[in-house]
Amino acid sequence: MADLVIKGGIVLTMSGEPIKNGVVVVDNGLITFVGRDTKVKADKIIDAKGCAIMPGLVNAHTHLPMTLLRGYADGLPYREWTEKIRKAEMKLTPEYIKAGARLGILEMIKSGTTSFADMYIHMDEVAKVVEKTGIRAALGYGMIEGLNEDSETKLKNREKFVKNWNGAANGRITTMYAPHSAASCSKEFLIKVKELAKKDGARIHIHVLETEDELELMKKRYGMCSINLLNNIDMVGSNVLAAHCIWLSDDDIEILKNKEVNVVHCPTSNTALGAGLARVPEMLEIGINVALGTDGAASGGSLDMWKEMRAAMLLHKLKNPRAMPAQKVLEMATVNGARALGINTGVLKAGCLADIIIVDLRKPQFISSNIPAALVNGASGCDVRTVIVDGKVLMEDHFVTVINETNVIDEGMDAILRLESECNQSC
Amino acid sequence: MADLVIKGGIVLTMSGEPIKNGVVVVDNGLITFVGRDTKVKADKIIDAKGCAIMPGLVNAHTHLPMTLLRGYADGLPYREWTEKIRKAEMKLTPEYIKAGARLGILEMIKSGTTSFADMYIHMDEVAKVVEKTGIRAALGYGMIEGLNEDSETKLKNREKFVKNWNGAANGRITTMYAPHSAASCSKEFLIKVKELAKKDGARIHIHVLETEDELELMKKRYGMCSINLLNNIDMVGSNVLAAHCIWLSDDDIEILKNKEVNVVHCPTSNTALGAGLARVPEMLEIGINVALGTDGAASGGSLDMWKEMRAAMLLHKLKNPRAMPAQKVLEMATVNGARALGINTGVLKAGCLADIIIVDLRKPQFISSNIPAALVNGASGCDVRTVIVDGKVLMEDHFVTVINETNVIDEGMDAILRLESECNQSC
Repeated sequence: MADLVIKGGIVLTMSGEPIKNGVVVVDNGLITFVGRDTKVKADKIIDAKGCAIMPGLVNAHTHLPMTLLRGYADGLPYREWTEKIRKAEMKLTPEYIKAGARLGILEMIKSGTTSFADMYIHMDEVAKVVEKTGIRAALGYGMIEGLNEDSETKLKNREKFVKNWNGAANGRITTMYAPHSAASCSKEFLIKVKELAKKDGARIHIHVLETEDELELMKKRYGMCSINLLNNIDMVGSNVLAAHCIWLSDDDIEILKNKEVNVVHCPTSNTALGAGLARVPEMLEIGINVALGTDGAASGGSLDMWKEMRAAMLLHKLKNPRAMPAQKVLEMATVNGARALGINTGVLKAGCLADIIIVDLRKPQFISSNIPAALVNGASGCDVRTVIVDGKVLMEDHFVTVINETNVIDEGMDAILRLESECNQSC
Repeated sequence: MADLVIKGGIVLTMSGEPIKNGVVVVDNGLITFVGRDTKVKADKIIDAKGCAIMPGLVNAHTHLPMTLLRGYADGLPYREWTEKIRKAEMKLTPEYIKAGARLGILEMIKSGTTSFADMYIHMDEVAKVVEKTGIRAALGYGMIEGLNEDSETKLKNREKFVKNWNGAANGRITTMYAPHSAASCSKEFLIKVKELAKKDGARIHIHVLETEDELELMKKRYGMCSINLLNNIDMVGSNVLAAHCIWLSDDDIEILKNKEVNVVHCPTSNTALGAGLARVPEMLEIGINVALGTDGAASGGSLDMWKEMRAAMLLHKLKNPRAMPAQKVLEMATVNGARALGINTGVLKAGCLADIIIVDLRKPQFISSNIPAALVNGASGCDVRTVIVDGKVLMEDHFVTVINETNVIDEGMDAILRLESECNQSC
């Protein structure tokens, strides 16, 4: 007797051909069977007729509590945006962080995201919300050297976070070291981070060459770009999530490829802030693992990975309509994301963690014989009916079971209004 | 006693400040009151608490029956796409057109589009579906000179369509002349179209400079671009919908401005086919009326105007993050579209036709103090709860009342599979 059988839909395994009228069996948090027929009985059976059964989406770069600052600095380019946002961030108490994390996780669950990689402040609050809501996350404290604490204290506290929370919530939480960028931390600090990460077997999550300003500053300071510096101190590897990676030279791309760095593409945020557009089709072409992230809602506008997929597809087609085929875009949001986070999800096959979503295809926008294209062009979060993480149902038929939606929304709106009022008084 | 009162939501009138806890009164197909309090009683009261009440969306450029070809030529650039699609189009019988129109209109109603401007073949079938489903449309037969009929017969038949259907369905249908482009019709043919349109008081819907190929062909043939040719024959004016307008010179933009031509921007389709990106922020800046359209689903991928709004916002921000503020994008999809189609909708105020949608804001992605930005970044068709056209409710709380959704979807899928099978045999 298995825990769960999902049957009757088209299974997009992301590791082979779609299976029509397929079956996925889940037991003890793991996928135990994916195929056509099975005699397996289960405690719970979900009929997914007319739906796609696919891996949950992986949002590989977020700043979750910034959900409270959505639209707050809308339309401003990077420098002005940062200035306005930084002032508001000074007001963020743990209570605000909790409200923002709850609101963001609700949006993610509702839109089919089952895992995310987050870096921000007061991350213990984020971890507690992750623990409670059943979602999967790779969490790290964002570190800007010299901000609030001295370097030693900062590193000690971050190490504490990494150790305390790694493997928590039945393994759903993994932890990372998250130095903000090579420009906002000294070389010496980064080396210490690298050594801690090595010692703890932890991942590193870092913004890399998001802006031309960073490139210029690094050249001025070190005579080389961020990638070269990180390479020099041996801080590039398959345990690194490098968010953005916009201002790359050909040599930088070569380094990312050779060192198997995971790149996280955030097309909406990069466009909204005028940061630029990363050379993603080229990177995918040579085999770099490029995942997809929404970035924080204050720049990305939305935590809906379907919207991010459509943005990724469109923005790159502007240069070349053959770029970014729909299937590749779906892979970025699933397989590639899981690989970036180092978690055993992103495909549906026996042995993988049971992070699964069910997408309703009985809607006019999906009536097509080209399901990947119809999904990337036509899907939104609200087409996701059911979300399963670690074999547990977090949302069924659009009803979120793990968190009270009304409360989260009311508390979120209340927090936003209070925060903006505080900012208006003194920001 | 009015027909309908909608109350309790935030009214985005698109002609002034939003009204919190507002009221919209509808009587006999017209809006009779928009404001805060009213004593008016009504046969039907809709409680829109937690929702935005706003004008229905106007999709100003579509080829509705191409909904059957969604994804069929995905990833191909313009020339190859056209070649593949043209062959499939040869198979389109009136029966297919009807199935495609029904599927497309279902998608439009569900996503909050209340009016659209369409040009294609077998338009009588489209008109019949419009009549039956209660949506509003401006319809024209697409005309490629020399295709299927001689010019005289073509013009005679198109004139018949314009006269037969104009004002039909209680005025919901208006008609247009729709020469495909200045490149696919001779100058003499276009002059005849212009004279017919003048005689009949009809609008003209035409593709203008969608591709660089068109620009080069026109220069070779006439020594001038399409805009100059149309200007020379006095075929530019406020009755013209010029779709795409990508390959424009500064002088062309000046002509569009001076002659009050309505430009229809189709960013997704233009990007998907590698056609280019129109200079929309500049055009809006100098006061050209730029509306928004999805184009056919075979190139635009989706008929969801919310997706088109997000695409319009993002693609132009790539050049300048200050371009395309959210409010302007909402205007393109409402006010500007209505002006382009020459219909008295697109804003909520007394005297306007009652084309209204209700959008559910009680979702995490809309919990923000910046409603326009949250809508353009976060909304999808499925956030639209209720759709009213001409004072009649076409969809209430996501339930479409005017057409059987299941039948339309089943018949649509059946038509797609049959059509593709015919194409595989002989295309």
